[in-house]
This record gives sequence, C-alpha cells and structure tokens, in this order.
Amino acid sequence: MRCSTASRASCAPPNLVEEFDLIKSLFAPLTGGRPEALGLVDDVALIAGPAGRQWAITKDAIVAGVHFFENDPPELIARKLVRVNLSDLAAKGAEPQFLFLAACFPKNSTQEWLVRFADGLKTDCDQFKVALIGGDTVATPGPLVLSLTAVGNLPEHSALLRSNARSGDDVWVSGTLGDAAFGLLVAKGERGALSDLDADNLLDRYRLPRPRVALGPRLRGLAHAAMDVSDGLLGDLGHLCRASGLGAEIDADDLPLSTAARAALAAGIGEGIETVACGGDDYEILFTASPEAAPALAALSREIDVQLTRIGRMVSGSDVMLRDGAGNRIAAGRGGYRHFEEAGR
Amino acid sequence: MRCSTASRASCAPPNLVEEFDLIKSLFAPLTGGRPEALGLVDDVALIAGPAGRQWAITKDAIVAGVHFFENDPPELIARKLVRVNLSDLAAKGAEPQFLFLAACFPKNSTQEWLVRFADGLKTDCDQFKVALIGGDTVATPGPLVLSLTAVGNLPEHSALLRSNARSGDDVWVSGTLGDAAFGLLVAKGERGALSDLDADNLLDRYRLPRPRVALGPRLRGLAHAAMDVSDGLLGDLGHLCRASGLGAEIDADDLPLSTAARAALAAGIGEGIETVACGGDDYEILFTASPEAAPALAALSREIDVQLTRIGRMVSGSDVMLRDGAGNRIAAGRGGYRHFEEAGR
Repeated sequence: MRCSTASRASCAPPNLVEEFDLIKSLFAPLTGGRPEALGLVDDVALIAGPAGRQWAITKDAIVAGVHFFENDPPELIARKLVRVNLSDLAAKGAEPQFLFLAACFPKNSTQEWLVRFADGLKTDCDQFKVALIGGDTVATPGPLVLSLTAVGNLPEHSALLRSNARSGDDVWVSGTLGDAAFGLLVAKGERGALSDLDADNLLDRYRLPRPRVALGPRLRGLAHAAMDVSDGLLGDLGHLCRASGLGAEIDADDLPLSTAARAALAAGIGEGIETVACGGDDYEILFTASPEAAPALAALSREIDVQLTRIGRMVSGSDVMLRDGAGNRIAAGRGGYRHFEEAGR
Repeated sequence: MRCSTASRASCAPPNLVEEFDLIKSLFAPLTGGRPEALGLVDDVALIAGPAGRQWAITKDAIVAGVHFFENDPPELIARKLVRVNLSDLAAKGAEPQFLFLAACFPKNSTQEWLVRFADGLKTDCDQFKVALIGGDTVATPGPLVLSLTAVGNLPEHSALLRSNARSGDDVWVSGTLGDAAFGLLVAKGERGALSDLDADNLLDRYRLPRPRVALGPRLRGLAHAAMDVSDGLLGDLGHLCRASGLGAEIDADDLPLSTAARAALAAGIGEGIETVACGGDDYEILFTASPEAAPALAALSREIDVQLTRIGRMVSGSDVMLRDGAGNRIAAGRGGYRHFEEAGR
C-alpha cells in the first residue's frame, strides 16, 4: 500500500499530505490481519500461487496534471504507467506476468490519442513480456486517470521485503539518482546552462522510467530488504528503516550520478544534492545486503550490466542520516524527510 | 475486460460510446493470447492458485458524477465500489477474498469524509469477509475516482464463463430487475406518484447493490454460462450471446419485478419495460442452465432464500429478442441493445 503525494507535475496541498497518514491508519484495520497484506507497508501483497510459487500484486494509479503532464505523448504516458508498476514488482524480486488496466478517459479523448496510448502499452507489454488480461474502461468528466494492477511471480518466501534489513547491512542502489527529479525541473522550464543533450537525457528519465526488471529477481538470496525508489531516496529509505526497525547512514559523495545529473548540479538546477536525494521518480532498486554479499553483487552488476552502488549502511536507531565526505551530517530526519519533500514540491 | 459507458449519474457523449469498441479492438492484442485473459470478453481473468484452485480477478473503476453522485454519502460510495466488484466475482462462481484499492481523492477531501469512506469499506469487508491487502492513494485535481481490484477463489475449470451457454439452455436471473434504474430516475427527481417507501426502496437499490455472493459459488456445476447484470439485462445478455455464439429469447412478462418497481411502472416513470430490461445497475446474476437443472435451482433458491426466475431460453442465431405474453416481439437487437442504452441515458 503506497500513500503518495507524488505531486511531480503539480503540488498537492499540505493538508492532503497530512491526510495520507490518516488514510493509512484508516485502512490498516481493513486487512483483517491477513499476512498477504504485509501490513500495507510494503510495495506489494503476496498471495499463494501454484507449486510453491507466490503472486506479488501491486496497484499504482497516475493522474494527469499530477504524475504526468496532460500533453505528454500518449505512448509515454502508457509506458510510464506500466513501468512504475513493474518497478514495484522488480523491487520485490518478482518476474512480471500480468496487467489489469482501469482507464478513465476524458470525454474529449480522440481516436488518434487512444491508438497511440495502446501502441505504448503494446511496446512495453512486448518489451517486458507481460500480458494485459483484464480491466475496465470508463469515461470521466475530469483528467485522465490510469490505474494499473501488476502481477508478478516468485518462489514463496523469497520476496525482498522492506522489513528484512539487518543492522550492519550495506545499503545499495541501482543505476543513478536524481535524473528524473532534474528532468521534471527541466520540463518546468528550469534548465539553466544545460546542454540540449543533458536536458533531453534528464527529461527522458522523467518521462520514461527504467524499471529494474532484470535485476530484481537476481537479488533474491543476495539482498535482505528492498524497495523501489519512487518518492525520493531518503524518503523511501525512511520507509524501509521504519519497516525494519532500524536507521541508516548514507554517504552523499557516494550517490551515483549520471553525466547529465552532474551537469544539472553544476548548473545550479534545483536544490543541489537534496534534489538527488529527495526528488523522486528514480524507479531504481534500493536494497540492503550483508557486507559479505559485496563480491557477488559486483559480479552480478557486471553480468547484467546494471550499475550497483554501495551508498551507506543500516544502523541501529531510527534516523536516516545523509553525511558529507568528512562525515558531517548534511541532513537527518525521521519519517521520510517530509520537510525536504514538502520544500521540494 | 469491461468497457462501459456506465453513465448513470450523467451522460457520456455518443462519440466515446463508439470509442469503446475501438478500445476493445486496441487492447485485444495486448493479451498476447494468454488464456488467463479469457479474450478480454469476460468479467474476470483467471490465474493459477494453489492446490487445484484458481484466482478470479476483476477490476472496475467508478467516477464521481458518472457512476455515483458526488454528494452521495461516502459510506455508500465505498460500499458500492466494493459491491460492483464482488458482483463480478459472484457471477463467475468465485468466493471473494482480497481487495486492492486505488483511490484518487480530490484535494478538498475532508477528514470527516475520509473517515466515513473507510467506515463504509470496513462495513463491507466485514460483511463479505474480504480483506483490503494493497493499493495506492493519490491526490487528484479532478473528481473522485476509485478503482478496485477484487480477487476471488474457486476450483480450477469451474468458473462460470460467458462463453459456455448451450442452445436450449434456460435463461435465469436472480432477484429483481429495474429497481436501480428506477432508483436513478428517482434520484434525478423523477418520482411521480411513488410512495416514499417505494421511492426509498428504489433509491436504496441504486445506491447500494446487493452482489449475489452467496448464490454465485452455488451455481458452479448447475449453471453453464453466467455474468452479472450491470449494464442492463438485454445489453449484458447480448454480451453473453456473442461470447457463446448464440441468440436468446426473453419473455417480458416473466421479468422479476419488486413491489416498488411495479409501482414505478404503474406511475409511468422512465420508459416502462425498457427501463427494466435495459436500465442497468441491477448487479444480479444472469445465467443459463440446462432445463434439467430447474428442480435443483428451485431447491437452491429456497435454501439460500434468493429469488431465481426463468426468463427465457438460449437459441441458435445471434439476436436477443424480448417478447410479450402473446409471443410478439417487443424489441430485438444485436450487439447489446445499444439503441436502447443510448436513448435511456
């Protein structure tokens, strides 16, 4: 169960941000204590599958004007929808299989738009070898709303839960961070002295997440805890820390940055390292693993050609601390760096 | 996969009604031919469960101003959401187990509204013994949009598919028809000489569907084909006929009517028998069965105290025909009585 302000394309009012805590507390009793729900604190639910397998099920919604721009290309809207959901499955170690789509199309949707939207779905169904097997299509007087339910498969008891981190674990992240957050700022017109190439790269990362579908299942047995980074590294790490009853220390100098993100930092776009650490929409996998797993993770990184970077460690306590190269605290917080999140939006 | 205009509280423009056929044709290739999708022509998808069981999964969305009135009591909105989805599971013979909710709450949602909405969810989770085990909550600048994914359980190869009707089958329906359609007209102010009691009963049926959760699983092994009546009897029967490659003849005099619906007919509300046969929101189970199953169905009806009425028969061809007591054709159509549906909305 994700309760996300997720206000990338526009800002949610603070009162609703606060409501999300209320909503979580209101919905928690509805699980009836079923273990499948994972307490509504993880990215998926897990239900029994055939022959020692489980189904991991996630459901994320995106709204025009909130999670994407209304005039974004329809193919990219469709693909972003698929990818934000596949990212949740990947982070649990599940192999994606099935999609269900509930689409609320505005009444003025054109045939051309719908054809292009379906084209985008088809592209990603093919790319990720998933099938759309059900759903619902309705008309809405409001903005386009898309809800996807994604179903993945994995061996039972192998899911990479948020709650399974251990004190002393290394904290790792895949790929690079901050690109999408800078891309959103570029989309909003803040591009400073960025080259066209860097600007395009950042914008592309905002519009088209790269879910780590190849990586996730390979982390089973290597990682202890995992989740995808969708709401910002420090905020999401805060969720993982709460679920595991631990704290974490992150080394700012170790955060993996793309060439374009380095250029954005140099150009003074956004809030510097805070944009990297708190910006969101990364759709990378954040995970923890025993230090002894480091050689195997390095080998895996080479084998599947996905950058994996050790960025810190899990510690006792409950704080998530971001430190500079001298070990000084840049920022620390409990509860997902909400002060950053609100300031950044 | 349901593609529904479902414009009960307001009207969808005809162009979007036409688009739904386009959408179906656009989405069909996305199944990748997976049998779990049931060709996107049924109410659910079926995926493998443990130990000879299957999961039936359905996903329906409802939108404020389209499927319910914005000012409807939040408890009832929540319960309608649950019930329209459980109705799909019941019609397949599945026992409901799990729910996933994607809620797009308007930014001005109040704490009181959210508490009442969660109360409604809790009431129906308890009543139907289902658990909310995941989902997503986001803010929207538009109307309230709610998407539910409901998961039910049933033995493999036992689902009551739309495509399994046989020529010569009786056509049956549970409960009574037309109440919700008249209830919507009452909600819109058309109540003529109806008594308060009748008006309240009809309105209640519109606002709070009664999914046939007890009936559905008991129809396994008795019924051949089944679906729930959500878009109107004749339209939905048209879907079942197309899926089964058959036609149907329905006897108008046999359509089961409540006392309140009879009063509404007498008061001249709506379009008479067309409102009953095409109005929608009934959430009863429409099913076909061999004539030899009639005694067992009568016994089942008495046992679980759910009215079951034989209203016609499956025939060769592709037409759905509604006939009066003298056997004269009142109306006939192919493709779901769309001319009625559009006129009625």
